[in-house]
Amino acid sequence: MKKSEEGIAAKKNEDFSEWYTQIIQKAELADLRYNIKGFLVFQPWSVLSMEKMYDYMEKRLRQKGHKPYWFPAVIPESNFKKESSHVKGFTPEVFWVTHGGTKKLEEPLALRPTSETAFYQMFNLWIRSYKDLPFKTYQRANVFRHETKATRPFLRSREFHWIETHCVHATEDDAMKQVKEDMQTTKEVLHDIYGLPFIFFERPSWDKFAGAYKTFAADVLNPDGKVIQQPSTHIIAPSFAKAFGITYKDKDGKEKPVYTTCYGPAISRIFASIIIVHGDDKGLKFPWEIAPVNVMIVPIQEDKKIKEKAEALKKEIEKFADVEIDYSERRPGEKFNHWEMKGIPVRIDLGLKDLENKKVTLFRRDLDKKEIINEKEVVKRVKEISEEFTKNLIKKADKIFQDRIKDAKNVKEIKEVIKNGGIARVEFCSVDKAGEKCAEIVEKEIGAEVRGTKLDETQKPKGKCAVCGGKANHIVYIARAY
Amino acid sequence: MKKSEEGIAAKKNEDFSEWYTQIIQKAELADLRYNIKGFLVFQPWSVLSMEKMYDYMEKRLRQKGHKPYWFPAVIPESNFKKESSHVKGFTPEVFWVTHGGTKKLEEPLALRPTSETAFYQMFNLWIRSYKDLPFKTYQRANVFRHETKATRPFLRSREFHWIETHCVHATEDDAMKQVKEDMQTTKEVLHDIYGLPFIFFERPSWDKFAGAYKTFAADVLNPDGKVIQQPSTHIIAPSFAKAFGITYKDKDGKEKPVYTTCYGPAISRIFASIIIVHGDDKGLKFPWEIAPVNVMIVPIQEDKKIKEKAEALKKEIEKFADVEIDYSERRPGEKFNHWEMKGIPVRIDLGLKDLENKKVTLFRRDLDKKEIINEKEVVKRVKEISEEFTKNLIKKADKIFQDRIKDAKNVKEIKEVIKNGGIARVEFCSVDKAGEKCAEIVEKEIGAEVRGTKLDETQKPKGKCAVCGGKANHIVYIARAY
Repeated sequence: MKKSEEGIAAKKNEDFSEWYTQIIQKAELADLRYNIKGFLVFQPWSVLSMEKMYDYMEKRLRQKGHKPYWFPAVIPESNFKKESSHVKGFTPEVFWVTHGGTKKLEEPLALRPTSETAFYQMFNLWIRSYKDLPFKTYQRANVFRHETKATRPFLRSREFHWIETHCVHATEDDAMKQVKEDMQTTKEVLHDIYGLPFIFFERPSWDKFAGAYKTFAADVLNPDGKVIQQPSTHIIAPSFAKAFGITYKDKDGKEKPVYTTCYGPAISRIFASIIIVHGDDKGLKFPWEIAPVNVMIVPIQEDKKIKEKAEALKKEIEKFADVEIDYSERRPGEKFNHWEMKGIPVRIDLGLKDLENKKVTLFRRDLDKKEIINEKEVVKRVKEISEEFTKNLIKKADKIFQDRIKDAKNVKEIKEVIKNGGIARVEFCSVDKAGEKCAEIVEKEIGAEVRGTKLDETQKPKGKCAVCGGKANHIVYIARAY
Repeated sequence: MKKSEEGIAAKKNEDFSEWYTQIIQKAELADLRYNIKGFLVFQPWSVLSMEKMYDYMEKRLRQKGHKPYWFPAVIPESNFKKESSHVKGFTPEVFWVTHGGTKKLEEPLALRPTSETAFYQMFNLWIRSYKDLPFKTYQRANVFRHETKATRPFLRSREFHWIETHCVHATEDDAMKQVKEDMQTTKEVLHDIYGLPFIFFERPSWDKFAGAYKTFAADVLNPDGKVIQQPSTHIIAPSFAKAFGITYKDKDGKEKPVYTTCYGPAISRIFASIIIVHGDDKGLKFPWEIAPVNVMIVPIQEDKKIKEKAEALKKEIEKFADVEIDYSERRPGEKFNHWEMKGIPVRIDLGLKDLENKKVTLFRRDLDKKEIINEKEVVKRVKEISEEFTKNLIKKADKIFQDRIKDAKNVKEIKEVIKNGGIARVEFCSVDKAGEKCAEIVEKEIGAEVRGTKLDETQKPKGKCAVCGGKANHIVYIARAY
C-alpha cells in the first residue's frame, strides 16, 4: 500500500493544522518537496478541480460583461514607482527579474504580485470617452509574492493561481455598484457552487489594501475559529488612476477622472477553504460541480458480468458527469477508503451478490450514506443525487457558520465568543480613524481583529460601542484571522 | 470610426508581413504597446479563441491518459546545471529572478523557458517501479525566453502560452510510441479542429532540440512559402533523466534507466498559424470550434419586430453556439465589414424587407457567400453550417498545402520549387552526420533548410541524393523556414 493511500491520522477538530497537512499529502493535492521554499507542485487531483473552479468563475464574469485579457507576467519597475502608496505596499514582496541570459536588463522587471500597474498603463491608451465606460476586464493568471510570513500550501504560497478583474468607471457610484456586483458574484460562485459560507465585509479604514480607497472582502470560517480572507474587492484610490493619466471625456465634453476597481478571487487559495470547510476525518468532500471525478465505479470482484455492467453504467453516466472505473489491484475495502478520502461524491459498488438480486450499492459522500438501489434505477438516482449534492454540503456548512456568529456586548463577551471559536457581532464606535484605538484593544486584549461592517448589513446599531462604551455607529464582526 | 474598424490596407499575397501586422491590430488580437520589448497584451478576441484552443487540446491529452499539473514558474539555477547540453541550449535565453524584495536570493531562479528541469526532479521522487510507467503528465503554462532574434507577435514573443507534456517510459520503443501518439494528437487537434495542414517530421540529426536524442516537429506552411514549426516532440537524451537520477525497478527486480519524451503545443504560436492559414484580405476566418463568437446577429434597422426576432434567434442558437447581437451605433455596412474582418463564421442580417417576406439573410465566412433563407429554417441552417464550416476551411487549406509540395531531383529543381514558394520533396543521402554537408549546400545555395523525413512516410527512395548524387537513403522535405 502506498503512503498516499493510508487514512488521515489526525482529527480535524482536535489537531486542525496536522489534519490539513496530512490531507494535502495523502489525497495527493500538492507535493511540497519542490526545491524552492514556498513554491509547490499542484498535482492532478487539485488541478482538475481548480480547472473546474476557473471555468465557473470565468463564465460568470464573462456573463457580467468582463472581457478576458492575458497581460505579461512581468512589469517594469518604473510602473511600480508611479503610485507611491502602492509601491510601499508591495515592494517588499516583489520578485525581481534582473537578467536576460548573461546580460543585465536595462530595467528590473517585477514578477507581477498583482497587475494594476500593468493594466493601468493600457487603460491610459484605451479609455477615451464616457462611451468606453464601464470598461470591465479580467485575466486568469499566476502571481508571485515573496512572502515574509510563513507559507502554507494553497493558503499562502509564493506563487498562486488567481483571477483578477480590473474595471474603470465614470463615477464613484458606478464603482460602488461594481463592488456590489462582485459581492453577488462571490455569492453565486463561492457560495452556491463551491459551497463556502462567507460574510462580505467593508474593511475598517485602517485595514485597506495598498493603494485602495475602500477595501471589501469575503471572510470564510475555519473550524479552528479563524477566518480566512477570500476574494477581496477594492475601489482604488483615485490618485492611482491619476498617476497613470487615465481620464475620459464626458458627455459634457469635459475631461474627467475615472474610478477604478479590482476583484481578486484566488482560485488556489479558495481551494484551501474547500478542503477545510467540507473535509472531515475521512478526507476530502468535493462539491459535485468541482469534483475532479464525480462518480467512481468499484467492481468488487473480477468478473465478466461486473465489468460489462461497469462499462454500461459508465457510458450512461458520462453523458452528464465525470465517471471512472477503478480496475486497480487494491482490495475493495482499500478502494472504498481511498475514494472516500479523495472526496468522490458518489461511489457505485458492483458486487456479484448485489447483481444477482438486481441491486447496486451507492455510497454518497454528502451524507456519508449507502443506498441499495434497483439496478435499473442507478443512473436516474445518480442524476438526482447530482442535483442535491452540493445543496447538502451548503446546508451543513451554512449551519456551522451561522452557529458560530454570536452577539457580544462588551470585551468580556467578545473574549468568550472568540475563545469558543466564534465570530463576535458587536456594536462599535467607528470603522474610521476614530475607532482605531478600540480595534487595538481588541487586538491586544483578545488577540482578534475587527473584520469590518457587513456590506449588505440591514440592521442599525442601537446602543454603545462594546469596547469603549461611546456611541455605536456601526455593527462590526470580530474574529481571529489566519 | 475607430481605427480598429478600418479594413486591412495590405494584400496577404502581396505584402504578407504588413498584412499580418495590420490584422493583429485591426482585429484587436493583441496590443503591441506594452512597455517591455517582446511582450504583448493579448486582447479578448484572441484570448477567447485561445481558451477554446486550450480546451480542445487539454481534453484530448486527458483522454490519452495525461494528468494535469501546475508546476512553479521558477526553477533553481542548480537544476539547469544538472544537464549540460540543456543548459548550453537554453542559458542565453533565460530570464533570471535574482531578488525578493530588496534581498538578493540565495540562488538565482530561472523563469521557466521549458520545464524539463522542474518536472524531472519530481519524477525522481515519483517513479519507483515499472508499474508507474508510462507516467504521462501535462501542464498549461506561460513560458519565457529572452529571444535574441527579432520578435513577432504570437509567432515569437518573449512570453508565450503553451502546453507542455512530460512523459516517462520504460523503453525506447515506448518513447517512440508516445511520439506517434503525439503526431496523432497533432492531427486530431491542429488539423481536424484548428484546420491547419502540416507535415510531421523527424528532424535531421543536426537540427535537434537542446538535450534531445531525437526531435520531431509539425511544420505548417505560410503563404510566403516559409514553414513555421508548430508542436515539436522530443525523445530526450537518456543522459538527461540520468542526471536527475530517474530510474525504475523492472519486473525482473533490476534498476533500469527511463526514456523521457516531451510535446509542446504552443497555443499562442499556433494561433499565429490560424490567422495566417485561414485569413484573407478581408480579415480573419476562425474555424467554427474556436471562434470567439460563432454567430453575430446584425439588426439592419432599429425596430421592435427586428429586436424581438434577434432575441428569439439568439435564444435558440445559444443552445449550441456562442451568439451575440450587434446593437452598436455603427451603420449596417460598417457592421458587415467589421464582423467579416473579425472572422465571425456566420452573420445573420435582420432587415425589415426580408422579414416582411419571411426571409433572413445569412452570411457564411467559410465560403464568403450569402444565403437567403426562410425565417423558419434559420436555426436549422446555422446548425448545418456549423457542422460543415471547419471542413470547408480544411479542404481549402489542405489543397493549398498539397499544391505547394513538389518533387525535385536536383539543386536546380529545388531552387525552382523554393522560388515559387513551395516545399521540395527530394531524395537525400543522409539525415545523420554524413548528410550535413549536403544540408549546408542547400542552406548556402538555396537559402532553404532540410526539414527532415516524414514520420509517417510510406515510400522509399529509389535513386540518388538530389544534392551530392550519392546513394539516397531518405526522402526529405526542403523549405524556407520562419
